Order: sequence, then C-alpha cells, then structure tokens
Amino acid sequence: MQNFDYQTPTRLIFGKDVVEKLPEVMKPFGKKILLTYGGGSIKKIGLYDKVKDLLKDFEIYELSGIQPNPKYDPSVLDGVKMCKEHDVDVILSVGGGSVLDCSKAIAAGAKYDGDPWDLITEKVKAQSALPIVDIITLAATGSEYDCGGVISRTDTNDKIGYMDPLLFPAVSFLDPTYTFTVSKKQTAAGCADAMNHIMEQYFCEDSTLLNDGFMEAALKSLMVNARKCLDNPEDYNARAEMMLDCTYGCNGIYSLGNSGSSWPCHGMEHALSAYYDITHGIGLAIITPRWMRHILNEKTVGRFVKYGVNVFGIDANKDPMAIANEAIDATYKFFESIDIPMHLRDVGIDESRIDEMAKHVADNEGLEEAWAPLTQEDIAAIFRASL
Amino acid sequence: MQNFDYQTPTRLIFGKDVVEKLPEVMKPFGKKILLTYGGGSIKKIGLYDKVKDLLKDFEIYELSGIQPNPKYDPSVLDGVKMCKEHDVDVILSVGGGSVLDCSKAIAAGAKYDGDPWDLITEKVKAQSALPIVDIITLAATGSEYDCGGVISRTDTNDKIGYMDPLLFPAVSFLDPTYTFTVSKKQTAAGCADAMNHIMEQYFCEDSTLLNDGFMEAALKSLMVNARKCLDNPEDYNARAEMMLDCTYGCNGIYSLGNSGSSWPCHGMEHALSAYYDITHGIGLAIITPRWMRHILNEKTVGRFVKYGVNVFGIDANKDPMAIANEAIDATYKFFESIDIPMHLRDVGIDESRIDEMAKHVADNEGLEEAWAPLTQEDIAAIFRASL
Repeated sequence: MQNFDYQTPTRLIFGKDVVEKLPEVMKPFGKKILLTYGGGSIKKIGLYDKVKDLLKDFEIYELSGIQPNPKYDPSVLDGVKMCKEHDVDVILSVGGGSVLDCSKAIAAGAKYDGDPWDLITEKVKAQSALPIVDIITLAATGSEYDCGGVISRTDTNDKIGYMDPLLFPAVSFLDPTYTFTVSKKQTAAGCADAMNHIMEQYFCEDSTLLNDGFMEAALKSLMVNARKCLDNPEDYNARAEMMLDCTYGCNGIYSLGNSGSSWPCHGMEHALSAYYDITHGIGLAIITPRWMRHILNEKTVGRFVKYGVNVFGIDANKDPMAIANEAIDATYKFFESIDIPMHLRDVGIDESRIDEMAKHVADNEGLEEAWAPLTQEDIAAIFRASL
Repeated sequence: MQNFDYQTPTRLIFGKDVVEKLPEVMKPFGKKILLTYGGGSIKKIGLYDKVKDLLKDFEIYELSGIQPNPKYDPSVLDGVKMCKEHDVDVILSVGGGSVLDCSKAIAAGAKYDGDPWDLITEKVKAQSALPIVDIITLAATGSEYDCGGVISRTDTNDKIGYMDPLLFPAVSFLDPTYTFTVSKKQTAAGCADAMNHIMEQYFCEDSTLLNDGFMEAALKSLMVNARKCLDNPEDYNARAEMMLDCTYGCNGIYSLGNSGSSWPCHGMEHALSAYYDITHGIGLAIITPRWMRHILNEKTVGRFVKYGVNVFGIDANKDPMAIANEAIDATYKFFESIDIPMHLRDVGIDESRIDEMAKHVADNEGLEEAWAPLTQEDIAAIFRASL
C-alpha cells in the first residue's frame, strides 16, 4: 500500500429542495456573486428564476453560455475579467460539470495577475482562489466533489485537465429533481463518464480489498440506476443514487493507497473531444472497451478477472482469459444497451486525423508510464479499433 | 433516499514515516501544544521520543494517563484546565481512539466558560474549539476521521457519545507501523469495533446499492485483514488496509441518504463498559450476534439475507430465515475465531446488575426508536443471552 495525503473538504448538501438553504450558505462569502451557467437549461427547469429570487439581496453578475468542453476563450477569460472588474467575492456555478470546471478556472484566474493559462497548464501554482459554491444539475463528472477541471482551447486543440486543492467547491448542492429533465443521451453519457472515472482507477497495479469493493459497488450501482433513470426519468431514488454514485468519481477516495493510474482513456478521449467537440462520456464509452481489449495480456489479465467476476458476476472457475474477454464484451454491451453510439464514425469522426490525434496524445499525456503503457502506435490502434 | 448535509474536512496523512511532516503541519496552528497520550505504549514504541524531538521548537504541555473508556474526571477536566492555564493553541493527540475522544472533549471545553459536561451532554452547543491534530496508533474507532467521541463518568455510570462538527481533527497522521505492537487482543477488539460501526449503519430500513456495497466491502476487508494482522503482526499491507478500513467507520459516509439508525449495540455496550470498564470492542462483539438473533423477524429478515449473501457468500437460493440464521452464526464464529471471549461472564460480568443496566440503557439511549425497537425487557434479554 502506498502512502497518501488526502482531503476533501467540500460540504455536500443533498436532496429535494435543499437549494432553499442557498442564501444562508452564500452569506458568509460576501455580497458579490459571479453566477455562471450554460446554455439555458437552468432557465427551462425554473432553477435560474429560483436562484435569482433566493439571492435577491445579493449583487449578482452573470456569465452565461458556458459550453460543454468549456472553452478558455471566451468563457474562462470573460469570467476572470468580470471577477476582477467587479471585485467578486464568490462564484456560484449552476449547471453540470462543464460549468463548474470553467468556474474553477475562473476562481483561480481571478486571483492571478498573469495569463490564467499558466495556472491551467500548471506552469504557475495558484496562491489563492475565489471560493466556489455550486448547484449541480447533471450526474456525471463528480466535479462537485473534487478539485479538478478540464478546459479546452480551440486554437491549439488542447484539452487540459488540471487540479489544485484550492479549487474544491466550498459547498455543493445536489438536488436529484434537477436531473429529471436530463435527456436520455446525456443521462447515458453521464453514466459512462462516471463508470470510466472508476475504471481508470480500478485498472492499476495494486489496489486494496476496500478500494476494489468500493469501486465494484459503484460500477454496479451506476449500471442499475442509470437504466432505471432511462426507463423512468422521474424516478427520484434512481436519480438520487446515480447522482451520489457520480459524486465520488474523481476525488481520489477510490484509490487511496493504490499504485495510481495515468487515466489513459481520459487522455485519449480528450483528443477526440478537443478535435471534434464530441460529448466526453460518449467518447469514453466508445474508447473504453477497445482500450481494454488492446491492453489485455498475461500481465493485466488478473485485474480483468476480478472485474468480470465481481462486477458482472462471471463464473470465477472459467479460464482467466475467457473471463476477461467476457467482461470486456459485457462492458461494451452495457454501453450499447443504454443507446450510446459505439463507433467513432457514429459521432462524426473518421480516419483522417487519427494519426495527428494519436501523436498529440502521445506527446502530452504521458501514457508510456501508464499501468499498461501506450505508445503512439498503441493509441492510434485503439482509435482505429473504435472507428 | 433521505436528504443529507455532509462534510468531513479532516486531512489524512497516511503511511510509513509520514510523521516526519509533523513540524510543518503543526506550525500554522501556533507554538503552544497540549500533547495528550495514554499509559505509555507510545513510549515503548519510541513514538513519544520521536514526537518530542520533532517538536523541539514548540512549547509542549503534557497530559498523560488517559485511560481506555476515557474519563471525564480527571482526564477531561485536567486537560481543559491545562489549556486555559497555558493558553494552548492546539492539541496533539498521540494514541488510540480513547486519547483522541478525550482530546476532543478537551478541545471544546477549553473554549467554554462553564462545566464541560454541558457540552458532552449537548445541553450547550459549543461555539468554538481548539484545533486537534492526531497521530493514531490503533486501528479501531475511526475517531481520527469523525467529529465524535465517547466520555465516561464513573460517579454516575454514564458513558456518553457526543458529536460536534467543530471537533473533526484538522489533520490525522496514520502510520500502520505504529500498530505492529498492538496486542492480539486489542487487534481483535479493534476489528470488532470497526465491524460493529458498519453493522450499526447497515441494519436500517432503507439503504442504497452504493452504501450497501461500500459496507459489505469494508466488512469483508476487515475480516480478511484482521486475520492477517493476527497471524503476522508486522504484515505492513494488512495493518495498513485494516487501518484504512477502520477510518471510515463513524464519519457517516456509509449511510449518506439512508434512513438512519440508533446504534443499538453501542447503546447497550456503553452500559457494559460504563459499569464494568471492559474493552469496548469486546463488549460489542459479545452483544452483536445476540442482538441480531433477538431482532430477527419477518420484518428485518431482508437485511440479514443481503448481509449473509454479500458478506459471507451464503447461497441466495436458500430460505431467507435460514440464510439470516447462518449469517448470524457466521458473525459469531468469526469473532470467536479471532479469539474474542464471546460471553459476558468471560469478561467478569454476571447476572447481578443486568436489570439495572438495561434500565439505564432504556432510559438514556432512545432504542425504542431504533430500526428494530428495543424495550427495557428486550435489552435485558439480549444481555442475558450474552451471559
């Protein structure tokens, strides 16, 4: 077991109507709020009006139009500018993980004199950041309970993940009813995203009985509850369980003491969504089973056997390679069964830029150091197998 | 799923030799430290000298002799007096859960003008508390990652659990090597304590797939790793896994959104150790299977079936009552197999005060509101079955 240093200080306020507590939660942070949100779905579900009404005694500045795969330019830059101009006290992010990831980059940038890109690329270590409160409206990224984010830069095709303990949300509100209107496509993509967060940590050299059991439980819960959400989008318990399942995905609790991982599927998917702006969870679902098949060998088979037996209930007495292949098939079939398009061509990606993307990944993601090391050729092969 | 409001802000620094970071961790809290510890085992393992050497630039006051089932008088009262007299900045608790529980009561009492018993009984809500850092030397209570404690008062036979979010340790150091010298008896008692923390939460009206899976994984990990620790006390990985298994026991993560529990075995055991000063984990191990058998009925059997199938691998196709009884037998046999004395008479408790204790529990622990309600007669029956 490896040494670790771990803390997740975020307060989770979870359940129906908990957002009523917003004024008392916001008050200690100050009067001036930057309210960040996306394309208007929070207006459709009445949450925008609700928040504005609850916060009528505060001074609110709004940054809207934050896109999925949130953009450095204009979103992060605009937000930083607004915070500095109006001397904002706290950021309130209302939306999914993209809005929150963008808000984290703004929170750090607002307290930095230079180009915020320095912080995202971790060239410069942030010294402080604005506090962040969020109301999460999508069960997927787990950004509400971690200190990381992913920002895209269209001029360079970069999609960069960054982490800083300063960027844990102070408080995250999670009301499952806000996810009732999430489309089937986004519900499935959220499930795939959260499952992949867990798989990225599960497939490693050394884990513990506790971590493995936690992750196996979370994977099983996600599969059961996502299906229930798809069958009945207003099933409160299923939406609630799925929301909580997603929350722990990226805060490190699943790999405390483990040997670590390089999150290879995320490394590869970031290229796909940077070059083609596809939905992150869909990209992950397409890549994951192909990555699994590509790295399956005598050295890695043991983890796949554990995964197959404990997550999918495959008979432990079968041949290890047979169990592993059955587990990979089951992974693929599950994603297919929740109507995720399982080929890159289904989401508009063809052969043409595969080698360019593979080079970009190989140059930037350090996947030669992964548990199952990936060269540029491996990455290109996984992309091709995903076509 | 129930609403919840959850936060565990404690920083965990885990692994071999992490205590070297002690000076830099203590520095922000101030110069004046109250060092709390127990009966001297930290001297035997060299930890006392190590800590004193690392903190030679600090001003250290010492409160030693804190006993298992830590006492209000003299330990809490003495500690509070010392903090006030010397204007202490921070408490450093070095030892097991008893030392830490006592330190939490001192931390709150040091900032309160009245009788600290008001805070422990929650008659008065603490307004502030001294910060606490701990070095934990026993895998058992999980006090290092929660905001609660248990304090005993010999003059009234009270043993009272209290909680306050102000009392989360700021930082907990966990070095598994400090548990190498923990006796077989205390290792087994620690395992039983942690297992019971989980069972108290597992047996409830409503849980989630995630919580159940987490708890089942933790129970299985505790059983496997405790046995390894007993077989080879210096098995680093087993000691480390057991230490982490214990850490989550009481911080609420296992029952987020669950319908809650009244911790009935703790309520009953607190009377045993208040009247007879027995080891808490031993008392819990003795009571737990008798409590299970006593509350097993058509209404509760479902949870026992889940427990039996998922924790002990009992065939799910058997009759539910048969599965439940087999699971209860397996619980008993596991505790017996790690050499825990499984009868109250083995730890010096006889029939004589059972009715008095049962009345004390019934009057003070609110167990008529438990998932499986317990009257004074039920409690006495469980005690008698445990003789």
